[in-house]
Amino acid sequence: MELFESKVRDSFGRQAFMTTLGAEIDCIAPGKVEIRMPFNPDHTQQDGFVHAGVISSIMDSACGYAAYSLAPEGCNVLTVEFKVSLLAPAMGKKFAARAEVKRHGKTLTVCAADAFAINGDREKLIATMLGTIITLPAPAPSPAV
Amino acid sequence: MELFESKVRDSFGRQAFMTTLGAEIDCIAPGKVEIRMPFNPDHTQQDGFVHAGVISSIMDSACGYAAYSLAPEGCNVLTVEFKVSLLAPAMGKKFAARAEVKRHGKTLTVCAADAFAINGDREKLIATMLGTIITLPAPAPSPAV
Amino acid sequence: MELFESKVRDSFGRQAFMTTLGAEIDCIAPGKVEIRMPFNPDHTQQDGFVHAGVISSIMDSACGYAAYSLAPEGCNVLTVEFKVSLLAPAMGKKFAARAEVKRHGKTLTVCAADAFAINGDREKLIATMLGTIITLPAPAPSPAV
Amino acid sequence: MELFESKVRDSFGRQAFMTTLGAEIDCIAPGKVEIRMPFNPDHTQQDGFVHAGVISSIMDSACGYAAYSLAPEGCNVLTVEFKVSLLAPAMGKKFAARAEVKRHGKTLTVCAADAFAINGDREKLIATMLGTIITLPAPAPSPAV
Repeated sequence: MELFESKVRDSFGRQAFMTTLGAEIDCIAPGKVEIRMPFNPDHTQQDGFVHAGVISSIMDSACGYAAYSLAPEGCNVLTVEFKVSLLAPAMGKKFAARAEVKRHGKTLTVCAADAFAINGDREKLIATMLGTIITLPAPAPSPAV
Repeated sequence: MELFESKVRDSFGRQAFMTTLGAEIDCIAPGKVEIRMPFNPDHTQQDGFVHAGVISSIMDSACGYAAYSLAPEGCNVLTVEFKVSLLAPAMGKKFAARAEVKRHGKTLTVCAADAFAINGDREKLIATMLGTIITLPAPAPSPAV
Repeated sequence: MELFESKVRDSFGRQAFMTTLGAEIDCIAPGKVEIRMPFNPDHTQQDGFVHAGVISSIMDSACGYAAYSLAPEGCNVLTVEFKVSLLAPAMGKKFAARAEVKRHGKTLTVCAADAFAINGDREKLIATMLGTIITLPAPAPSPAV
Repeated sequence: MELFESKVRDSFGRQAFMTTLGAEIDCIAPGKVEIRMPFNPDHTQQDGFVHAGVISSIMDSACGYAAYSLAPEGCNVLTVEFKVSLLAPAMGKKFAARAEVKRHGKTLTVCAADAFAINGDREKLIATMLGTIITLPAPAPSPAV
């Protein structure tokens, strides 16, 4: 496993909320991440669809890790902001969020993500995100190290 | 309890994800809703802060219900889109999302929300949202009714 | 010229601000519009780059007309909201905004647009937009008509 | 005139596009800027209202200068991204954009702005913006200086 993949999987494994959602990283490439998540009735809104905030959460994590996959060693990333448009009710057995870096900079990275509801072989686009991620330089090593 | 309040509390009670988050409606006025939520380590990201998607979720629900409180009887509301800016790490014992309608229209309503981390008496602004909600007309009553 | 194209060109011709910017429609397909604009020092910000609002303007018009190209006869469209991320300084001899419908609905249409700076054969991505357009039904014909 | 005001007015004076729009700074305080602009038929869309991109332009400049008013001496600011919601048609004799810093950071500043149409004594809220501005450190003085 390459460094960019192992560091993304390592950090993702520490996102307790992704575990709570049952979300998993499906594939990683430099600047691209896909996250998958099963339907869970505990994550629905009043009509029984998955809550917009849950779909936004897997899109946000996918964007953050797409940016992180390109970040220099030792750097951290944080979401600055995102905008999400909800295109169809989040109704399905599984969901996927696919993020891609649109512009990678030393400080700021802009990512786009699409979310899909998956039922058998069919995928339906249900949401799209545009967000900004900041790369924070690694803390200077402490004198004791 | 007035009608706008009872219908908001009723719908909120059906949002399973809000129950999962331990979120509760703190107060409701026409066009204004506040939601509160305790810290829960199951909802954190890799650094131990609450995940941006969780904070966005309570802001989104607060915006949706602020719009819903003004919607005509029988109508439903759905989030069209939102943009969230993350202003500080979501670190605290409790969190509040306060939403207010900025423009109420027959079809579209625009809401703004702020999110705060609460530690004892102190509140810190941690995020802000601007979103659009659509009001869907009540289905026509069926002839049998 | 097909109806969708003639109605888009007709409406675009009435956007005085596009004329002021020297902007022109480069190509139209159902759900897709490209607008081009030359550099003009009257439209710059303090560093001599084209103002973000000008680039946003041609992206917004491109999104609006991409939606309008799919709207039923007699309907109008209006921008509800948009989000733009600025990816590089708007520095070039010409600029292009390419918009595409991501989700077309009866009431709301979501469009994405990219903006490019063009210097000779080279294009550079300088901005990206995600926006929402509302389709308004044609006014009912007046009894006298 | 204090330093924050003179540097803002100086930079604004170099924004050729603001001059093209007939826009002027109405008032400045630390973290707050108001820009005013007259109606001009050259800046309209197909229905005779001011183009959303023009209203966004004065809001963007107001946000940028609200952030700039707080930036350390010698630093520059650039817009990273913004989201604008259009609340009513831009119809009026004059327009005002009022921006305020919501969160000022060393690198990133988040601003909110409202835009108003002004007719005599009456103001109508027509748009609202949420945006992110980056502060770039002053270039290091060259050895010759």
